[in-house]
Amino acid sequence: MENVIQALKEKLAEEQISTNQTIKELHSKDETYHQTSLPDLVVFPKSTEDVSHIMKVAQRFKTPVTPFGVGSSLEGHVIPYQNGITVDFSLMNKVLEIKEGDLLVKVQPGVTREQLNKELKKYGLFFSVDPGANATLGGMAATNASGTTTVKYGVMRDQVRDMEVVLADGSVIHTGNLAAKSASGYHLNGLFVGSEGTLGYFTELTLQVYGIPEHIVAARATFTSLTNAIQAVTSILHAGIPIARVEFVDEASIMQLNKFSGTNYPVKPTLFLEFHGNEAGLQADVAFTKEIMEDHECDNFTSESDNAARNHLWEARHNLAYAYIHDYVGKKMMLTDVAVPISELANSVIYARGELDKLNIPGGLLGHVGDGNFHSLIMIDMNNEEELKKAKQFNEKVVRYALARGGTCTGEHGVGVGKKPYQREEHGAALDVMIQIKKALDPNNILNPTKIVDID
Amino acid sequence: MENVIQALKEKLAEEQISTNQTIKELHSKDETYHQTSLPDLVVFPKSTEDVSHIMKVAQRFKTPVTPFGVGSSLEGHVIPYQNGITVDFSLMNKVLEIKEGDLLVKVQPGVTREQLNKELKKYGLFFSVDPGANATLGGMAATNASGTTTVKYGVMRDQVRDMEVVLADGSVIHTGNLAAKSASGYHLNGLFVGSEGTLGYFTELTLQVYGIPEHIVAARATFTSLTNAIQAVTSILHAGIPIARVEFVDEASIMQLNKFSGTNYPVKPTLFLEFHGNEAGLQADVAFTKEIMEDHECDNFTSESDNAARNHLWEARHNLAYAYIHDYVGKKMMLTDVAVPISELANSVIYARGELDKLNIPGGLLGHVGDGNFHSLIMIDMNNEEELKKAKQFNEKVVRYALARGGTCTGEHGVGVGKKPYQREEHGAALDVMIQIKKALDPNNILNPTKIVDID
Repeated sequence: MENVIQALKEKLAEEQISTNQTIKELHSKDETYHQTSLPDLVVFPKSTEDVSHIMKVAQRFKTPVTPFGVGSSLEGHVIPYQNGITVDFSLMNKVLEIKEGDLLVKVQPGVTREQLNKELKKYGLFFSVDPGANATLGGMAATNASGTTTVKYGVMRDQVRDMEVVLADGSVIHTGNLAAKSASGYHLNGLFVGSEGTLGYFTELTLQVYGIPEHIVAARATFTSLTNAIQAVTSILHAGIPIARVEFVDEASIMQLNKFSGTNYPVKPTLFLEFHGNEAGLQADVAFTKEIMEDHECDNFTSESDNAARNHLWEARHNLAYAYIHDYVGKKMMLTDVAVPISELANSVIYARGELDKLNIPGGLLGHVGDGNFHSLIMIDMNNEEELKKAKQFNEKVVRYALARGGTCTGEHGVGVGKKPYQREEHGAALDVMIQIKKALDPNNILNPTKIVDID
Repeated sequence: MENVIQALKEKLAEEQISTNQTIKELHSKDETYHQTSLPDLVVFPKSTEDVSHIMKVAQRFKTPVTPFGVGSSLEGHVIPYQNGITVDFSLMNKVLEIKEGDLLVKVQPGVTREQLNKELKKYGLFFSVDPGANATLGGMAATNASGTTTVKYGVMRDQVRDMEVVLADGSVIHTGNLAAKSASGYHLNGLFVGSEGTLGYFTELTLQVYGIPEHIVAARATFTSLTNAIQAVTSILHAGIPIARVEFVDEASIMQLNKFSGTNYPVKPTLFLEFHGNEAGLQADVAFTKEIMEDHECDNFTSESDNAARNHLWEARHNLAYAYIHDYVGKKMMLTDVAVPISELANSVIYARGELDKLNIPGGLLGHVGDGNFHSLIMIDMNNEEELKKAKQFNEKVVRYALARGGTCTGEHGVGVGKKPYQREEHGAALDVMIQIKKALDPNNILNPTKIVDID
């Protein structure tokens, strides 16, 4: 590595390169159960030129490079399994430009979601993608993150107008333009978003933002059964009500949430909802939603348009993962992440709950059910090999169930190493197309190797 | 070609292969001014297996293959400039499955937009992308078509959940799955949509559809100037009003439209609008829109919720291209198609109108201004070399103006041969990434060669 460090120092300052053990350990893991692995060194670029230089050095020495935002990833994306250089984007954290008139913002990849929204609020704007964690926007683009608002505003890929990307040879490209749509050439925005650092590193992102809605209503609805709750969602979607969020939380998770957040929500299958629009329209939407829910044995429906009450409700929902982590100190989190066609959702959730009950491991179900995407969250004792094995088998069962019904192994967390074993099963011969693209753009396989697919 | 025909006959019936001159001529052109070129033969596959066989034969003999829907393309995409085999998808025109519960439909590529909507109507559903022409869905996916409803429902790429694609070697892949979102692997749906037959041929498409809105209001607004009309649109977008269509038509085009459709709309810069939602919400949206328009010197605002009146209004708008074609018999149509960031739209339209006025060629401006996308439609006498040259220079000026302002050379018509000269200017080094992908997936360059980029 001495050669690599020497070459990096040609353009980077001393303090931008670290081999400190604590720093390396911070970059050896993500937020979940995946095995850790140390980088040989961590670099902190400050500019596109720095990233380009790092890439050229990595290419010269055929050293693996792994990107790192805040490490909130869930499938091992940021763990450098072949060691080498970890590129930490925390010093590239500027909101470069807010183009209010175009509803666009240009940011560096290390800007976090909350940091951006704080800036945008001054202009009456907001960034729509909300995965829960305060992830970096570079990381969210790398994994095609989504979350609670996707049912209305779309996934991360839908928000990206343009990215500046440093390729494996250090050259710099732009993947799009600033117009709202384009039919010019291959869709590189779409290809690079979700490529998990395996095709190039993002150094600037131009993202679409929205005006803060005129009127917002949040609601909470409880049901007599899980099936009723999910079927109510299906009916809302069919009715074409333009719902902005619709989140399912099962009984086990409501208990956990009450314990952590001090709420006393009824311990029942629950939907958390949100509506955005004008006041008259929302009144009609909420009334229609309530009617549909009552057809599905909803026994309690509470709506809130007051700002503080709405925030309280969503804060409780957003703290759910931490509610589990907080209560099971020393255990590691595993999250399944399948998405299925809406018609398969109720049965998929019932199946997952049934399999989870057999495990005797603490956990619950929650999900962005408007997109057919749900998570089983389970807390694993990593010193208990039997438990880890059972948890992995459970994950596998849920994935196979979804794939057999036209679904996907990951709705929003990405592949990383955790979903790599299912790539062939999900994509079939299309995986070879992905491999051809990877080989064409990264012939020496230095860009986040071992992620998405293994390259010979 | 005799060898090729012999090989094709191994699996195709006699009547699926044509070398008839009339048939070849029908496949030698699109709807615009681009130079014609004849295929050597036209084949009519009936199944994925047929397409796969055609591709294997083409690969064996290194014969170019060009796809063909109904020929409504506007940038020469379907014209076989290297002759060879044209693959006409008109026999693959079945709606295979309507998955009502999932709001999905599976179709063959030769199904047209109107054919699909006729089927969907029985279920209270509709397909959102409306480019005006009754194009095939395969062709619309190949060019990433969009149109009047894009401002609310998105472009063709946004509707594609999965496609079955035959690759250059005859192998068959699926590009997606049936879930509403996915973070699994590279975004092949996005890559193949808009690839204009240069990466593979679509044999099945699974598309997202929507419930017909509860309530629809259409409106027409006239303005004292073009600038006021465009600035009104910008203000509507900023206000976050969820408008479903917003179309600009300039004075010259209103005159043409009145003449063709027998309407007597005031000859002024005009917006045609549409709103979808619940009745109470729409009343508020329309009232707010009217208020914004009046701030921008709108001198007449008429809204219609009656079905027949709405249809009449949109029919007039949709017939606009035909209104020109009908009136200039023997002339050919050229359409510019830039899209720019919203803040640049008013100036871009004024610039285009000014340049058009200098030409002394009949034409007008119209556009999907909610997306920053507008067209200058001009009618050219192809026997007048001077006129063709002037028209091409005009097109070039409008494109350069848009590119210099962060826009794109084509918002929705695609590249074909017409926008190929601007690909390097628009994409810079990113064009090399596109070329690398093309070479990886079509090493012998048999798939619609000469389109998007020239490959050595």
